[in-house]
Amino acid sequence: MKNILLLFDTDEYTTPFDILISYDAGFDIVVPYAKVTAESAITLTQDAMFPRGVKGVAHTTIFVGGKDDEEAKKILTNIKKTLFPPFEIAVIVDPRGGHTTASALVAKIEKLLVKNNYSLKGLKVVILAGTGQVGQLAAMICASEGAEVVITSRKKERAEKIVGELEKESGFKMKGVQASNDDEILESIKDADVVIATGKAGVCLVNKEMLGKLERCKVVADVNANPPLGIEGLELSSDGKEIVPGIYGLGALAVGDLKYKVEIAMLQAAKDAKKGIFDYKYAFNKAKEILDLK
Amino acid sequence: MKNILLLFDTDEYTTPFDILISYDAGFDIVVPYAKVTAESAITLTQDAMFPRGVKGVAHTTIFVGGKDDEEAKKILTNIKKTLFPPFEIAVIVDPRGGHTTASALVAKIEKLLVKNNYSLKGLKVVILAGTGQVGQLAAMICASEGAEVVITSRKKERAEKIVGELEKESGFKMKGVQASNDDEILESIKDADVVIATGKAGVCLVNKEMLGKLERCKVVADVNANPPLGIEGLELSSDGKEIVPGIYGLGALAVGDLKYKVEIAMLQAAKDAKKGIFDYKYAFNKAKEILDLK
Amino acid sequence: MKNILLLFDTDEYTTPFDILISYDAGFDIVVPYAKVTAESAITLTQDAMFPRGVKGVAHTTIFVGGKDDEEAKKILTNIKKTLFPPFEIAVIVDPRGGHTTASALVAKIEKLLVKNNYSLKGLKVVILAGTGQVGQLAAMICASEGAEVVITSRKKERAEKIVGELEKESGFKMKGVQASNDDEILESIKDADVVIATGKAGVCLVNKEMLGKLERCKVVADVNANPPLGIEGLELSSDGKEIVPGIYGLGALAVGDLKYKVEIAMLQAAKDAKKGIFDYKYAFNKAKEILDLK
Repeated sequence: MKNILLLFDTDEYTTPFDILISYDAGFDIVVPYAKVTAESAITLTQDAMFPRGVKGVAHTTIFVGGKDDEEAKKILTNIKKTLFPPFEIAVIVDPRGGHTTASALVAKIEKLLVKNNYSLKGLKVVILAGTGQVGQLAAMICASEGAEVVITSRKKERAEKIVGELEKESGFKMKGVQASNDDEILESIKDADVVIATGKAGVCLVNKEMLGKLERCKVVADVNANPPLGIEGLELSSDGKEIVPGIYGLGALAVGDLKYKVEIAMLQAAKDAKKGIFDYKYAFNKAKEILDLK
Repeated sequence: MKNILLLFDTDEYTTPFDILISYDAGFDIVVPYAKVTAESAITLTQDAMFPRGVKGVAHTTIFVGGKDDEEAKKILTNIKKTLFPPFEIAVIVDPRGGHTTASALVAKIEKLLVKNNYSLKGLKVVILAGTGQVGQLAAMICASEGAEVVITSRKKERAEKIVGELEKESGFKMKGVQASNDDEILESIKDADVVIATGKAGVCLVNKEMLGKLERCKVVADVNANPPLGIEGLELSSDGKEIVPGIYGLGALAVGDLKYKVEIAMLQAAKDAKKGIFDYKYAFNKAKEILDLK
Repeated sequence: MKNILLLFDTDEYTTPFDILISYDAGFDIVVPYAKVTAESAITLTQDAMFPRGVKGVAHTTIFVGGKDDEEAKKILTNIKKTLFPPFEIAVIVDPRGGHTTASALVAKIEKLLVKNNYSLKGLKVVILAGTGQVGQLAAMICASEGAEVVITSRKKERAEKIVGELEKESGFKMKGVQASNDDEILESIKDADVVIATGKAGVCLVNKEMLGKLERCKVVADVNANPPLGIEGLELSSDGKEIVPGIYGLGALAVGDLKYKVEIAMLQAAKDAKKGIFDYKYAFNKAKEILDLK
């Protein structure tokens, strides 16, 4: 039977990215659905469960994608509510590549720490402008690895609201602080071991001078692919390069390379699986496996 | 050349059901079109007729589907008007599986009657709440088998309007009656040989007490897949089980199993055919063939 | 790796024509996008460039199609702006088959001229009602072959506006004249060597009497597929038939046959190419090659 992927995309146009990479991961057919909502996902899922019978449904996979990662979360919730044995379907969750990006990012950081005889466990990780999808997922992954996690936002309320949601979702404690100017940013990161910038393209969050004032920082990372990056001195291709004495940098290309491998592996695993959720948790374990961590 | 199916779906999202089952039936490629209307079907059909030449058009098939079976009927009319030799295309008509469901339903009833030394010919079939797609198609099929057909509706005018349309479409006489409460329902079915319930999910049309008062009833059937069913005592999996003395029941799963086989067979036949309409007429003959009837 | 075509279609429904012919040309998968605009084409292109890596992007192709050839032009402009080495993608441009039709049309005319010991070089070509896509493209192709080109329109301003745009785009001089009635049409074509009619379906532009008054005309052509054609006496299947003494005719079917071959060849070439634009220029060279011209 053909391995068929149903792409539930929140966007007006289903992204060629997810379609093309899914074919390359080995799916025979990708059926793209645009403008999928939490509500429409219910009927789409029901209609995917039965036509192929129990044997066939094992060859059907769902991919939840799109720019609207909040809606994607609700879509996943509704898919889970709709599926029941024995008509289960493996579901990939990776809106705009956020899950695989966050996973690759944290795995690369961990690898760099291990190389320098550290590990995330017990370290302080500050995620600057961390209220977006990648920031949130990186926060939960770092917390699950035993790190002390701080998320900053330009507004205190926003940071605290997101942290509240993440604590509920992950069961880990975190902290949300305001960092709307250089002083507040420096204050938030001065005793950080790891600084991750997940802000908007083209906004410099940490300049060289600030980097010089960090007391314990070992790794800085930025997944932004459009220069200037959020951390001065960091380059797109930085893959553990020492950007100031004792601080090693990770840029978008270094993360992207691993992200691609994780994504292909996750797609293939979901294709071969009969059920299960393939999201940042799966992706992070896969990323560590690829990097020979643990 | 690739066997390509164009799915003309009236819905906002093309249903994964039709897409998945079509791949499983052997089509190489399914091209889904959402929100197809009677009007847009004309251009879509024209554009499907010529690109592959006479040799190639034999490998192109159209599937008319969607929740709006009234629009689907108009789409079919316009497709037929548009096609001309030698650029004909085989067309499958099965909006929301209605044609294959009605066909499997009536074939299963016939099979059960034959097993008990009856046949539809000359028997009275009452289709409760029969003004929807499955009810209408079942009515025409039963009539074509020589049964005396009655369709009920909560409103007399609705029943008579539908019967008028079906008589015109099929050339067979039928009767439309009002059955909006227990008394009227009982009145409509008390001398029926076969009772088919095609009402809304979760509405009980015939209770046990009413079943006890039926004078000649041999078979009751319900294609509803969501309990409670329209006929009390009937189960989803009933496949000829005697639910009260002398009355045998058919539930949705028993019908669904045959429906699936008919659908696959119809898709494959249309795939291999150069032209022709594959609707409830084809489906009913196929269903009888599968059940070794006639 | 699978050869995947992304169809960027301006229409509400992606045309089955382009999808079916693309499969027949050998693409493994066609991914249709409807309602594509110049703006959305940017993101779609970006998302197509990266998921398969440098090796994979060579197996990705874009097809720009749809009824709105003006928007298609803008889409192409934006695709070109977005692509950069080494992530280039071969792009086919053929909205509603206009590029391949115009190319086949002019190649067939040239072939007919050559057979009668002429060539387009130096001849006067008048394109009646030539402000649509096929007329415009035929004008640029004829001009590139050294012909003196005149485009007519019912309104002088319209003719001159289009000619201005075409001169800018092609770098060749042309002339735009008004031809809104029989007298003006006759005036515009009386010393033409070649007359091409690209008007609306069912409007006769040149009647038999007018044909008799042409002083130097050698070829008349019309790509309209719906009779009555724009040139009286011409038939759909005319393939060089002498319709009045000394004037040879080309009808839509004769052009269409070559157009089909050109389209298949262009699709295959784009499939195998790593980059480049496949539009009327490529198509015309291919058409000449097929006809053994030059």
